[in-house]
Amino acid sequence: MVEEKENVANGEQVSKKGAKKLAKAAKKAEQKAENASAAAANNAGGDSAEDHAAGRYGLSEMIQSKDKRSERNFFPVSELSVQVGKGLVWVRGRVHTSRAKGKQCFLILRQQSSTVQCILAVGDVISKQMVKFAGNIPKESIIDIQAKPVAVSSKIESCTEQSLELSVEQIFVISQAKAQLPLQIEDASRPENAEDAEGLNIRVNQDTRLDNRVLDLRTPANQAIFRLEAGVCRLFRDILTEQGFTEIHTPKIISAASEGGANVFTVSYFKDSAYLAQSPQLYKQMAIAADFDKVYTVGAVFRAEDSNTHRHLTEFVGLDLEMAFKYHYHEVLHTIGNTFTSIFKGLRDKYAKEIESVGQQYKVDAFKFLEPPLILQFADGVAMLREAGVETGDEEDLSTPNEKLLGRLVKAKYDTDFYILDKFPLAIRPFYTMPDPNNPVYSNSYDMFMRGEEILSGAQRIHDPEYLIERAKHHGIDTSKIAAYIESFRYGCPPHAGGGIGMERVVMLYLGLDNIRKTSMFPRDPKRLTP
Amino acid sequence: MVEEKENVANGEQVSKKGAKKLAKAAKKAEQKAENASAAAANNAGGDSAEDHAAGRYGLSEMIQSKDKRSERNFFPVSELSVQVGKGLVWVRGRVHTSRAKGKQCFLILRQQSSTVQCILAVGDVISKQMVKFAGNIPKESIIDIQAKPVAVSSKIESCTEQSLELSVEQIFVISQAKAQLPLQIEDASRPENAEDAEGLNIRVNQDTRLDNRVLDLRTPANQAIFRLEAGVCRLFRDILTEQGFTEIHTPKIISAASEGGANVFTVSYFKDSAYLAQSPQLYKQMAIAADFDKVYTVGAVFRAEDSNTHRHLTEFVGLDLEMAFKYHYHEVLHTIGNTFTSIFKGLRDKYAKEIESVGQQYKVDAFKFLEPPLILQFADGVAMLREAGVETGDEEDLSTPNEKLLGRLVKAKYDTDFYILDKFPLAIRPFYTMPDPNNPVYSNSYDMFMRGEEILSGAQRIHDPEYLIERAKHHGIDTSKIAAYIESFRYGCPPHAGGGIGMERVVMLYLGLDNIRKTSMFPRDPKRLTP
Repeated sequence: MVEEKENVANGEQVSKKGAKKLAKAAKKAEQKAENASAAAANNAGGDSAEDHAAGRYGLSEMIQSKDKRSERNFFPVSELSVQVGKGLVWVRGRVHTSRAKGKQCFLILRQQSSTVQCILAVGDVISKQMVKFAGNIPKESIIDIQAKPVAVSSKIESCTEQSLELSVEQIFVISQAKAQLPLQIEDASRPENAEDAEGLNIRVNQDTRLDNRVLDLRTPANQAIFRLEAGVCRLFRDILTEQGFTEIHTPKIISAASEGGANVFTVSYFKDSAYLAQSPQLYKQMAIAADFDKVYTVGAVFRAEDSNTHRHLTEFVGLDLEMAFKYHYHEVLHTIGNTFTSIFKGLRDKYAKEIESVGQQYKVDAFKFLEPPLILQFADGVAMLREAGVETGDEEDLSTPNEKLLGRLVKAKYDTDFYILDKFPLAIRPFYTMPDPNNPVYSNSYDMFMRGEEILSGAQRIHDPEYLIERAKHHGIDTSKIAAYIESFRYGCPPHAGGGIGMERVVMLYLGLDNIRKTSMFPRDPKRLTP
Repeated sequence: MVEEKENVANGEQVSKKGAKKLAKAAKKAEQKAENASAAAANNAGGDSAEDHAAGRYGLSEMIQSKDKRSERNFFPVSELSVQVGKGLVWVRGRVHTSRAKGKQCFLILRQQSSTVQCILAVGDVISKQMVKFAGNIPKESIIDIQAKPVAVSSKIESCTEQSLELSVEQIFVISQAKAQLPLQIEDASRPENAEDAEGLNIRVNQDTRLDNRVLDLRTPANQAIFRLEAGVCRLFRDILTEQGFTEIHTPKIISAASEGGANVFTVSYFKDSAYLAQSPQLYKQMAIAADFDKVYTVGAVFRAEDSNTHRHLTEFVGLDLEMAFKYHYHEVLHTIGNTFTSIFKGLRDKYAKEIESVGQQYKVDAFKFLEPPLILQFADGVAMLREAGVETGDEEDLSTPNEKLLGRLVKAKYDTDFYILDKFPLAIRPFYTMPDPNNPVYSNSYDMFMRGEEILSGAQRIHDPEYLIERAKHHGIDTSKIAAYIESFRYGCPPHAGGGIGMERVVMLYLGLDNIRKTSMFPRDPKRLTP
């Protein structure tokens, strides 16, 4: 049995006070229910002179799939309200908090983001030993309880289930947590800008969170963030699939650095060297040249940039799309813009609960957007910045502060957190960007912004091989190194445009969070490779 | 203009006979329509003494998004039949073949998997020069044509649109292909086992295909394979999402080799070394320990195995899932089995056209499956093999030949191409596999097979940290190296099980193809890193 193994094999583990107490309290129950399997525990109890609750609590044997069926029919915490007055139910969840006071034990059971108050009071069913046992279960342990859902007269403010509590009759530990946790879920869940009543203001810093991500991810805000993130991917794919896009998968290990060679991770590949792809762009373009017409791909992209900022990761998830068009790259620009609008609407309509959960910990202003989205020319953006007193050149890229300022100016003028900036200066875009045919200073390229930060960069790509060579030479690029790329366009290629979106950035900026590490489940940056 | 640039910048390119002829034929039209933009070309023509079709054909200017709107309202080839008798339509597609014979030119226009016959005959609208021009357009070039859809009396066997042809009135080259192609789409599309009429039996070998993937992917079979592959991913995700699974994203760059250290690619990570993940398993398990309950992830996985077989890739797409269960890992096994059944039904019902397309080139036997899926015990499999005369030990893993033989035996006995083999011997599974509580020889682990090849491996994982240490030690593993993994289970973790599916294998085996490189868009193996 688990607890025996712990006693023998790991002295350090059981030396902890909590575990000892727990073992002691469980001992008598264990003696009675020698085979303390869940099923057996159900049938035992009540025949002890010392402990009339023996067999109704204890440490369960490790669940090893011994029996095909269990007699426990479990209810989700969020559905308990319909069970009030209908008798006993089984619930599996975590001990969020547990407090024994004299003849009573109050325990909050947590199941993902739902919590319910449980009560054990000494009486016909519950013994003193059982109350003590329940009060000593370490926080975060997983338990099975059998209980009666009972309506309460005054709202239980500390739980998500506020109109009922569970009157416990059986309680078994399924998986016991260490008595000492590296962080407390309550601390990790505390609102960022609120004073807490006890005046302690305990917060958990980011590294502690990330070092103990398995615990940190259990907070209601994190449960919500990553469910919403799954929603972003799902919406992105569904919206594009409906429009005839085909999902593709592109290789991450590549033989040549995709965007020039800087900031690329090197991989040892058998006796050779290879690189990790910085974007799926070449492959998306090849799929277009191969007649897939409209494609998207969701996958890891890698940047070996030593940038330690709030918005850079060395590995992130790219939501990339590429699309052939007939005459004008705005056919694609509008498709992408409308995809964002649909994602924003989908999040607003289907993830209201998650957005609210995040808002209970972090300050979340509702994300504003226009339909159709606002499209500004780069030159208009420059004019707005100059009007605000910023000195910036016509062909100068937006600095991060200017990007943010422009976001604020746009928000003030148009009341939108999302906009598209079209016609970037040619000089500041990659060689494969199609120049503007009407003005040599500009190009057929665009960025899209959420709350003043870039979340998509895209363009019409040059689909003519000779013009591509000309532009590459103009940029001083050794064309022999990109021969395979150029070759892709020699067998007929439709005009096309596309873009790449950083998934974690979309979630961060949609929710107005301050750090991209909050929206990457297991973030990677120059200083972090674990867990 | 594109063609001028080609003339000047790339002598090698224009020295080709086809391109020269084309340039010559186009010259007069070019003179007339100096600004040979699509819109201008529309309005020109008819006023030349020498060529009464001038302005109705030629090389278009590179599409650079000059004009916001085009007057050309394009129809998809597959929808042309409803346009018969309704006058002129525009179609954009590729020149599949083109043959000028005297006063006529027959051209087959291809659009993804659809083809339609086009005809140009000298007369009031078409000139001799125009016929010549059309006959000289290199195969695979992208063209715009304006034409009348006309019903034909006898079926056109060589096209997918068999009841009509297009009577062309205007024809412009949008993107010109090289005159010499490294492979012919017709050759690459030829049925594998058929004799061709001309007795040439030209096939394209796999390396030539993969070296020129942009062309190879244009065959109807490849167009279908990758659309079906997108369908597999979509079905996998939709089926699991409906059951409450959450999509997660796991890091590909990891600090320690996930499964022991063999067969892992090394990455240089700033001043350090890191590895490419061989599976997302640790992260899926951490997501379970972090209360996500049921998770899946779709993403690249990496194997540095020097295996040059029909079914190994060094990088492939993993469809991975992990799920907490209440009492028995069969709750998970049934979920996975039913997911496969739903995928098979979805493919059968929604991808019949794609399956048929693949079948026109490769021999595809319909994939058979039972509902619910067949579950055999490993010991039953061993017994069947022994009955067939194979000598194999009780605790011996299935060799590849035995795996295939067992697949044939199962097919013969149960008439299914899919089955589950449960309760593998403990000795041949990884240390984290939960032993069978009822028989120490076996474990709570399973493989799933399609057409006799393994496509999923999975198990109940040990969720108890002390037992995990015990099993790791038993396997001679240095537990200090997996401390972070073990640590994940110290804060309460529900019992859980899962598995990983190779996406490319599922598609290969569902269609009965002979090589996994046919189902990876840009495959990676020990000898191939390009394109």
